[in-house]
Amino acid sequence: MTLRKNRKAVLASRPLGLPNRGNFRIIDDIVGELGPGQALVENQYLSVDPAMRGWVSDESNYADPVAIGAVMRASAVGRVVSSRSTHLKLGEIVVGRFGWQEYAIVDDMTEVRVVSASYPPSLALGALGANGVTAWLGFMNIGQPKRGDVVVVSTAAGAVGSLVGQLARLAGCRTIGIVGSDEKADICLNEFGYDVAINYKSDTFLDHLEDACADGVDIYFDNTSGRISDAVMGYLNKNARIIVCGTAAIESWDPLPTGPRIHRQLLTKRARMEGFLLQDHSHEFDSVVDHLTTLVDSGALKYREHVLVGIERAPEALELLLKGGNLGKTIIQVD
Amino acid sequence: MTLRKNRKAVLASRPLGLPNRGNFRIIDDIVGELGPGQALVENQYLSVDPAMRGWVSDESNYADPVAIGAVMRASAVGRVVSSRSTHLKLGEIVVGRFGWQEYAIVDDMTEVRVVSASYPPSLALGALGANGVTAWLGFMNIGQPKRGDVVVVSTAAGAVGSLVGQLARLAGCRTIGIVGSDEKADICLNEFGYDVAINYKSDTFLDHLEDACADGVDIYFDNTSGRISDAVMGYLNKNARIIVCGTAAIESWDPLPTGPRIHRQLLTKRARMEGFLLQDHSHEFDSVVDHLTTLVDSGALKYREHVLVGIERAPEALELLLKGGNLGKTIIQVD
Repeated sequence: MTLRKNRKAVLASRPLGLPNRGNFRIIDDIVGELGPGQALVENQYLSVDPAMRGWVSDESNYADPVAIGAVMRASAVGRVVSSRSTHLKLGEIVVGRFGWQEYAIVDDMTEVRVVSASYPPSLALGALGANGVTAWLGFMNIGQPKRGDVVVVSTAAGAVGSLVGQLARLAGCRTIGIVGSDEKADICLNEFGYDVAINYKSDTFLDHLEDACADGVDIYFDNTSGRISDAVMGYLNKNARIIVCGTAAIESWDPLPTGPRIHRQLLTKRARMEGFLLQDHSHEFDSVVDHLTTLVDSGALKYREHVLVGIERAPEALELLLKGGNLGKTIIQVD
Repeated sequence: MTLRKNRKAVLASRPLGLPNRGNFRIIDDIVGELGPGQALVENQYLSVDPAMRGWVSDESNYADPVAIGAVMRASAVGRVVSSRSTHLKLGEIVVGRFGWQEYAIVDDMTEVRVVSASYPPSLALGALGANGVTAWLGFMNIGQPKRGDVVVVSTAAGAVGSLVGQLARLAGCRTIGIVGSDEKADICLNEFGYDVAINYKSDTFLDHLEDACADGVDIYFDNTSGRISDAVMGYLNKNARIIVCGTAAIESWDPLPTGPRIHRQLLTKRARMEGFLLQDHSHEFDSVVDHLTTLVDSGALKYREHVLVGIERAPEALELLLKGGNLGKTIIQVD
């Protein structure tokens, strides 16, 4: 049997503030032998996600931190190239937490989904995967959209936000996207169909937001926290719903940063604010992917991918994403 | 026809910070003649409520501010002593927004509920009125209690909080009350059946809270905002529910005071935080009062009233309430 080389990106050190490429190291390892029940997946695409900032930190979070020296935790999609498993078949395309590496050995304990071969496999990481299901469930379950609602989305051109904006439009809502560059604002308007797109880095951000929110805000899909959210909270309508899906604007939560207290806004507007994490919803995943697939097939749901080639670029891709330099879903194509 | 004198407490000036008795003036007016469809109510008890702080302020709120010179907005319970109304009968006991005055003329536009004569009329302002319905609906609808949940209540000995604690216990929850004096803590333990009661003014508050919340918090009924809420938020369990019912700890919301941002806690715990105002729930009022009446009848639900006699004491009673000097529902018995 020939030994296969396995290139990996491992966590080398805990970041102070935002993770950067210096916190990771690329190493060449060897793929071990499969035990009974195991399968070998050759990764084709690796996911790069905002949540990774929390995973590499040792601040209290919803998931244990990635250990120093361990391969970086990441979703990935790839092909089963060898199998001693009873349920994973040679040649199947599968998605799971396979990590930033070329090859992953998975066993019966690993949560793995088989992906339709009819779509580009990278979609299983984005619009037809975790991002799509997050957008759908967060927006539908917590947002409970009604036709005519005003919906504000932060990181509106991002992997999740861009889908939320489109789902909101399809639900008959008026959509306002908040982004970090004029280029992203253009894409929001011309590609994702937002009614309004506002660059929060512009000097006129607050004025533009006030104009856009003249009829108030019914649903706020919050991917940022920070000053963007502070501004949006001032326009809540009665019974507004706020989905807390990410906190991209805050570098560290230890100690808790301060900001305007929101209790009175929630009270006087009888508003509901709720955190959403995909990990609670695995039982709904497949049925939501079916809905999303229909929308992608019909052309109703558009997506963008920001692809970098080669595992060694994964740390750089994360740095880019966390600085807002990406356009759409950030993924690594394994070379 | 003899002219009836009508003693009133009117708003004399807008408070800076907490309202005090100097912001009100007692005047003697004359009751006017009834027009067609109108009835005259002789008030017996007047309500004194934390929400009045918002009503006399001109900060943005859920209700228009009381005008300077106008009789103070307040719920009251009284007897119909004269009627040209088709639906209010002489002698009936009724409750409504009759204001801090001896007599109120009500018409078909006034929302009035007829109260059972089987109970002390003051109960229609508290446990069998707005406070009871607020406690029930806020706790049941937003809190969605399950047996074994840990429930924290701030202003735990207050008109609403004392009922929430008891409803939580009846639902099989473990109850932790936060209060502002040792005397209130004693009442919480011995009268309202809390499992734990903690005085937030004690130097050991944070330590006691940590001990009490060793198993986390599933429901937080928040009547305070401020540092009490900041402390409780650190112990949320997964899928915790936070009812925002009052903000007693914050003197002014203009400009918004700052405090620890709560987005990350809501996200990582998938917690839900929602504002509750009774005014949205008039259609449920009567059926909830029926439930509460059953509980009061059986002795399962206890209440306390803090009664001051004479309309001229209403401003002083509000001042006392806002400083936490009351024990139970604060009411004015009309002399």
